[in-house]
Amino acid sequence: MISRKMEGLVKHSSVIRAMFEEGKKLAAEYGQENVYDFSLGNPSVEPPKEAREAMLSVLTEENPVMVHGYMNNSGYEDVRAAVAQSLNKRFDTAFSKKNILMTVGAAGGLNVILKTLLNPGDEVIVFAPYFGEYNNYVSNFDGKIVVISPNTVDFQPKLREFAEKISEKTKAVIVNTPNNPTGVIYSERTIMAMSEIMYKAMDAFDTSIYLISDEPYRELAYDGVEVPYLTKYYENTIVGYSYSKSLSLPGERIGYLVMPDELDDFEDIVAGANVANRILGFVNAPSLLQRAIAKCVDATVDVEIYNRNRELLYHELTEIGYEMVKPEGAFYLFVKALEEDDKAFCQRAKKYNLLLVPGSSFACPGYVRLAYCVDYDMIVRSLPAFKKLAAEYKN
Amino acid sequence: MISRKMEGLVKHSSVIRAMFEEGKKLAAEYGQENVYDFSLGNPSVEPPKEAREAMLSVLTEENPVMVHGYMNNSGYEDVRAAVAQSLNKRFDTAFSKKNILMTVGAAGGLNVILKTLLNPGDEVIVFAPYFGEYNNYVSNFDGKIVVISPNTVDFQPKLREFAEKISEKTKAVIVNTPNNPTGVIYSERTIMAMSEIMYKAMDAFDTSIYLISDEPYRELAYDGVEVPYLTKYYENTIVGYSYSKSLSLPGERIGYLVMPDELDDFEDIVAGANVANRILGFVNAPSLLQRAIAKCVDATVDVEIYNRNRELLYHELTEIGYEMVKPEGAFYLFVKALEEDDKAFCQRAKKYNLLLVPGSSFACPGYVRLAYCVDYDMIVRSLPAFKKLAAEYKN
Repeated sequence: MISRKMEGLVKHSSVIRAMFEEGKKLAAEYGQENVYDFSLGNPSVEPPKEAREAMLSVLTEENPVMVHGYMNNSGYEDVRAAVAQSLNKRFDTAFSKKNILMTVGAAGGLNVILKTLLNPGDEVIVFAPYFGEYNNYVSNFDGKIVVISPNTVDFQPKLREFAEKISEKTKAVIVNTPNNPTGVIYSERTIMAMSEIMYKAMDAFDTSIYLISDEPYRELAYDGVEVPYLTKYYENTIVGYSYSKSLSLPGERIGYLVMPDELDDFEDIVAGANVANRILGFVNAPSLLQRAIAKCVDATVDVEIYNRNRELLYHELTEIGYEMVKPEGAFYLFVKALEEDDKAFCQRAKKYNLLLVPGSSFACPGYVRLAYCVDYDMIVRSLPAFKKLAAEYKN
Repeated sequence: MISRKMEGLVKHSSVIRAMFEEGKKLAAEYGQENVYDFSLGNPSVEPPKEAREAMLSVLTEENPVMVHGYMNNSGYEDVRAAVAQSLNKRFDTAFSKKNILMTVGAAGGLNVILKTLLNPGDEVIVFAPYFGEYNNYVSNFDGKIVVISPNTVDFQPKLREFAEKISEKTKAVIVNTPNNPTGVIYSERTIMAMSEIMYKAMDAFDTSIYLISDEPYRELAYDGVEVPYLTKYYENTIVGYSYSKSLSLPGERIGYLVMPDELDDFEDIVAGANVANRILGFVNAPSLLQRAIAKCVDATVDVEIYNRNRELLYHELTEIGYEMVKPEGAFYLFVKALEEDDKAFCQRAKKYNLLLVPGSSFACPGYVRLAYCVDYDMIVRSLPAFKKLAAEYKN
C-alpha cells in the first residue's frame, strides 16, 4: 500500500540495514573492540569548543522567543550576513545575505535547489564515483541522472565523456569536491575545463546549466591543498554547504545554499528556493543552530586528527599491497578491491571483522570505500586484519 | 528557468510577501505599537523553563559526539521510547519506540508520510477551512487534493459530503484538530462518524485509507475540553505532531510521527517513512532538540496566556458585533467578514492598521483569520480599530 517508488527504495534499504545489523552482530559476538567498522561517514571528532560555547551563549544570552521562533524561511538575516562575510573574507567573493539561504544540512539544500530547478525528465549529470543519495534527490523531482563513468587513474572527472553527454536536456551538474568516496579534490584545471564545456553547451543549446557544488568536506583538505571556490570559475554555480563535518554536527542538520547574483534567473531562483525550503517541510534551518553558527562562523574541527588517520591508513595499506590514490581531502580512502567483484570482496573482509562499503554503491565497482573518521587505535588494531585479507589473494 | 511547478508557487508567494512587506511599511509609518498584526501563527509565549533547562543539560552533561552525531534516521531509540511512554501515559495507548519517528516538525512529518503513501493521482481529502500548505505538501508527490466544503455553522466537517467524495482513489484524509484557522476541536461524535465512513469505504473499494492527524495544536485546548486521540477511533491513523506550539519552539523544527502497529502494511510504512525522512533531505530530526525533548517530554507552555487573549478578543469582538464560533483550541479566531469579499475586507482593515488573513487562503471565503498568539496589550490597543472597521459597514 506504500507508493511504488517507495517500494523499490525500501527493498534496497533493507539490504543496507541488513549490513548494519550484521555489523552489530559481529560486535556482539567478537566484542566491539575486535570489529573494525570503516563503513560510516559519522565524524568521530568532538565539535570544536567554539561551537559548544556558541550554542550555550545563544541559549543563555539571547531572547528565547527570538532564538526558538520562526524567522524568514531563508533564515535569520544577521546569520545569513555573517555567513556571506565569512565567505567573502576567505574566498574574495562579494556575497551578501540575499545570496545565502540557511538549510537543513547539505541534503536539505540539495533537495531545495533541485526542487527549484527540475522539471520532470530534466537531466542531472554526476561523475562516478559519486554519493548514491544523489539518485534519490534527483528522483524526488522526477529528474534523470546521467552518469559520467569513473576515471580510475586519478579520479578527476572524465571531461571528454562529459562534453559528449551534456545535452539540451541538461539542467544541472553535481560535483562533490573534496569527494565522497575518493577523497580527491578536483583541480583548478579540471574546474576550468568543466566550466568551458558548460559555457559552450549553454551557447549551443541556448539553455541554462547550473553547477551544483556539494561541499560538506570543504574544510577537510590536507597538505595545504586549496579547494577552488567554484562560483569564481562558473557563473551559474550554486554551492550547497554543511557544517556536519566542519563542526562535527551532522545530527543537527545545519548548512546553507549560496546563490550568487550572477545566476541566470537569479531572482526567480532565490524566490523559488525560499518557497521550496518551506513547502518541502523544512520550513527553515533549525533556529538555535543558525544563531550559533553566526557566533562561530570561522571555527573548524581539528583536521589534524583526520590527517593522522589518513597517513597511517594510506601508508600501512600501501605497504601491505593495496592500491589507492592518496586522498587530499574528506575522510575516505577509495581502495582497489583485490578481486573484480567488490561486493564479494566486502563479504570476505567481514570474515576478518572488517566492515567496508562496496564501490558499486558509488557507481564504481571494483573498489571499496573506507571511512577513516574513526579512532586511531581502531585503525592500528585493524591492520593485521587487512594483512590477513590480502594474504587470501596471494595464493 | 526555474521549474514550471515552482513558477506558479513563486508568483503566489510574492502576493504573501507583498502583504508582509506592507505590514513592515505600516509599522515604519505609524510605529510598531500602532500596527495590530494578527496575521502570523508565531508563538509569543516563551518556551517553558523545562525546555530550556533540558537543552542546557544535554549540552553540558551528555557526550557531545553522541549528542550532535548521526543516529538512525528515525531518531534516537531512547528519545522515541520516551515519546511513546508519554503518549501511553496520557492516552492509554500501547506504543513503543518502533511506532515513533522523530521529524523536522509536523511539516516535515507530513511530507514524509505523504511521500511514503502517495502514487501520482492518489486523492487526499481535506476539510475546509484548512491550512493551505496541505495543497503544496500533496502536490509535492503529485497527489490530488479533494476539498470538502466548509460547514460554517459550527465548523465541524460535513460528513455527508465526505461520504459522497470518498472514493476508490482516496489514499489519505487529513484532519487538523484543534483546527487552524477555526480553533474548533472535532468532537468525539464527529470522529466516530468519520471513522465509520472510512471503514465502509475501505470495505466497499477494497483499499486502505489512511487518516493523517496533523496535531501541532493538541496541547492548546481550553475550558477542559478533551481532544480525542484518533488512533483509538480508527486503526489506519497516523499522527503528525510538532513541539512548535506546545513548547514554543517553532524555529527548531522538532516533532514526530506516530505509526501504530494496527496500520495496514505497518512494516512497509515504517520502513518507507524511515527512507523518506532520509532521502527528502531531512536525514533526521535535529539531534540536540531530540535529546532535549526526552528530558521534558511532558512540559507545555502556559496555555492560560493564550486563553486570556482568546477570552478578551472573543468577548470584545462579539460585543462590537462581529460573528464567530468561540474557539476551543489553537490560537486562532475565524471571524465572519463584514462583506462577502474577504480579501476586500482585509484591505479595508489595513486602513486601521489591522493585519488579518483572508479566509480564501483556507478555502473558506467570507471569513478572516486572527492569530491571537500576540501580546495581550496589543489586543487591547487594537479594539478601537476593530470598532472603526465595523462602523464603516453600519451605514
